[in-house]
Amino acid sequence: MISAEASATTSVRVALGDRAYDILIGRGLIAEAGRAIAERLPRVRAAIVTDETVGGLHLAALTASLDAAGIESVPIVVAPGEGSKNFATLETVVRAILAARLERGDIVVAFGGGVVGDLTGFAAAITRRGMRFVQIPTSLLAQVDSSVGGKTGINTAEGKNLVGSFHQPDLVIADTGILDTLSPREFRAGYAEVAKYGLIDDPAFFAWLEQNWQGILSGGPEREHAVATSCRAKAKVVAADEHETGERALLNLGHTFGHALESATGYSQRLVHGEGVAIGMVLAHEFSARMNLCSPDDGIRVEAHLKAVGLPTRLSDVPGGLPDAQDLMKRIAQDKKVSRGTLTFILTHGVGKAFIAKDVPPAAVEAFLNDKLAG
Amino acid sequence: MISAEASATTSVRVALGDRAYDILIGRGLIAEAGRAIAERLPRVRAAIVTDETVGGLHLAALTASLDAAGIESVPIVVAPGEGSKNFATLETVVRAILAARLERGDIVVAFGGGVVGDLTGFAAAITRRGMRFVQIPTSLLAQVDSSVGGKTGINTAEGKNLVGSFHQPDLVIADTGILDTLSPREFRAGYAEVAKYGLIDDPAFFAWLEQNWQGILSGGPEREHAVATSCRAKAKVVAADEHETGERALLNLGHTFGHALESATGYSQRLVHGEGVAIGMVLAHEFSARMNLCSPDDGIRVEAHLKAVGLPTRLSDVPGGLPDAQDLMKRIAQDKKVSRGTLTFILTHGVGKAFIAKDVPPAAVEAFLNDKLAG
Ligand SMILES: NC(=O)c1ccc[n+]([C@@H]2O[C@H](COP(=O)([O-])OP(=O)(O)OC[C@H]3O[C@@H](n4cnc5c(N)ncnc54)[C@H](O)[C@@H]3O)[C@@H](O)[C@H]2O)c1
Ligand SMILES: NC(=O)c1ccc[n+]([C@@H]2O[C@H](COP(=O)([O-])OP(=O)(O)OC[C@H]3O[C@@H](n4cnc5c(N)ncnc54)[C@H](O)[C@@H]3O)[C@@H](O)[C@H]2O)c1
Ligand SMILES: [Zn+2]
Ligand SMILES: [Zn+2]
Repeated sequence: MISAEASATTSVRVALGDRAYDILIGRGLIAEAGRAIAERLPRVRAAIVTDETVGGLHLAALTASLDAAGIESVPIVVAPGEGSKNFATLETVVRAILAARLERGDIVVAFGGGVVGDLTGFAAAITRRGMRFVQIPTSLLAQVDSSVGGKTGINTAEGKNLVGSFHQPDLVIADTGILDTLSPREFRAGYAEVAKYGLIDDPAFFAWLEQNWQGILSGGPEREHAVATSCRAKAKVVAADEHETGERALLNLGHTFGHALESATGYSQRLVHGEGVAIGMVLAHEFSARMNLCSPDDGIRVEAHLKAVGLPTRLSDVPGGLPDAQDLMKRIAQDKKVSRGTLTFILTHGVGKAFIAKDVPPAAVEAFLNDKLAG
Repeated sequence: MISAEASATTSVRVALGDRAYDILIGRGLIAEAGRAIAERLPRVRAAIVTDETVGGLHLAALTASLDAAGIESVPIVVAPGEGSKNFATLETVVRAILAARLERGDIVVAFGGGVVGDLTGFAAAITRRGMRFVQIPTSLLAQVDSSVGGKTGINTAEGKNLVGSFHQPDLVIADTGILDTLSPREFRAGYAEVAKYGLIDDPAFFAWLEQNWQGILSGGPEREHAVATSCRAKAKVVAADEHETGERALLNLGHTFGHALESATGYSQRLVHGEGVAIGMVLAHEFSARMNLCSPDDGIRVEAHLKAVGLPTRLSDVPGGLPDAQDLMKRIAQDKKVSRGTLTFILTHGVGKAFIAKDVPPAAVEAFLNDKLAG
């Protein structure tokens, strides 16, 4: 699945038949983006959707790269943050694409974090019943997770990501250098998803992360390796289960607990997604140990690593306090993974040995949370 | 493709591999709708989207039919008319489906004309990234055209139907008796699309229509035959070209001229879609004759039939007058079927012999329209 594209570029292929596409990974790739697009999609015009923060820092470089390759582009700038994943901003983006008179064969470029990627991918999916679409993810979370796999969407008051499409990009360009301007907190939040791939089914990668995480944060060559390994892991799962009817659920390791915590803190800056996932992954290991599925040492090891990186790992790390176990259980039950009285959870037999458990008794989870909240 | 389902029900299959579905056609089918759905989609809950007019007349009957089959349903009622095909109403429908706590396997039912069908199909496509969807079309246009083929969508200020998805229904139920409450004008507008199938590639059907149109309007058994023949024709084209990259364009016979006229009259009640198509089909035959592709007699024959049915057939039939040929050409060029200076038009070698012409010189069309407007 890997081939050397240019000296410093790693290429990961997402094997989806006639909708297969490449993920290009490397430091400085923005400068190559125009050429990479023009090679694959000749004679297109582009709309670049970005947020104010990313656009302010990096839009000029991307536009210059497209210009140099003869790709005319129009920018569409939205406000940063989760609040832009709504119907009103979707309408604004769609209409701006139409107003720019882009045709079905032209491209929409998502240039930002997961928010911009999810919103833009959805806009591309529904404009002219499906336009071509390039992801240029600029947060670590977007590079290793949201930009790969074709899940797009927005939120409504009824819930997060309940409205959207499956719409695969034609190309993903992950410039690892662009992460240098990401805040350390957002970087660490994305790191939780990197660690997740090790915890799901790649114990050697997790062990490598334990040794090499500092190089990832500081921007050494370890960063490209971590992004590429993560993309390869996600690409494999997506190729096997594009529409999330089975195995793709493994990607939710730590997410059932994590979503409940995000919900309990109002999806606010008290806890960003990756932080909830970090705590959730530790809880998933601890709960698995309590169910005698793995050793308590696994939870200890996972927590030690995430803590070293600077991530929260315990319920008591959530600033401002949490509701009681019963309330958290209600939020878990509202999550979509409930069916006929039992919960579907991602549990584990140990580091790198996660599995889908379909018959978890809610009472056992609630008792576990109760104990955790108590101390 | 045809099999007798019950005594009076005709079934047409849309052959789309693992997304194949049936169109059931017959008088009184609303009473059977619950059973037909439950047979194919066991244990579902339903949201029924309808407009105030159709809902006021027929929702109770549909709800009773679903109740009798053990299908719990919630109604979602929108305002009648093209104005409901917008982002705001889309959001309302999507959120109402979510608020009713329907799951991905539950169904969304479109119960109305093409407006309700297009809007509801799109809402079903994007809610939970794709819900099951049943079309119960109640206008003739919807029964013979919009409910079949999976094109869904809404309008924006930038144009009609530029935002949407391809999302195939799981079942289409066309109760021909429900058309008894449709206004004669809307019925005739739908009739233009019925005649279109004869004009595209079925001269025998067009000849049959010339003899039997009165039975279609009055609700005799001719109506079921006309709806079934139309659905079969559309199903064949859709199966061959689901995403409109080729042959499906034939369904646009009369529509390039028709859209220009709808646009020039502001999509108002001055000219409804099928009326524009009726005039457009006559113009397409006349223009083809002028290009020496068919005989002038073909245009005369087409006009005579549509006029007998009560449809407008000439530019001078449009109440309130029209702009000049140059203005109409601008509207035609704005239509999506323009590419690099030449127009793609559906032209014809005669009744039942339409074809896709990719290199029509705009100047020839403008000169033709100029002459037509002059007298
Ligand atoms: N589609 C999927 O499969 C999938 C998977 C996981 C998460 N998600 C979605 O992703 C979203 C979260 O993504 P995110 O964490 O990237 O959030 P985000 O897009 O809000 O980015 C986080 C913050 O970092 C800023 N930022 C991004 N790149 C930057 C850079 N290079 N320099 C400086 N600032 C930068 C942004 O402006 C924003 O303020 C959520 O909406 C979540 O639902 C989707
Ligand atoms: N998706 C497609 O492939 C496709 C194809 C053709 C047209 N369309 C779309 O279809 C729409 C037009 O459809 P339409 O002509 O059915 O318009 P419509 O849905 O507005 O219906 C016309 C009018 O008839 C009323 N009505 C419908 N059924 C009735 C009944 N049984 N009794 C009494 N009144 C009834 C409606 O309330 C409405 O006022 C347009 O938006 C067009 O873009 C879509
Ligand atoms: Zn996540
Ligand atoms: Zn039409």
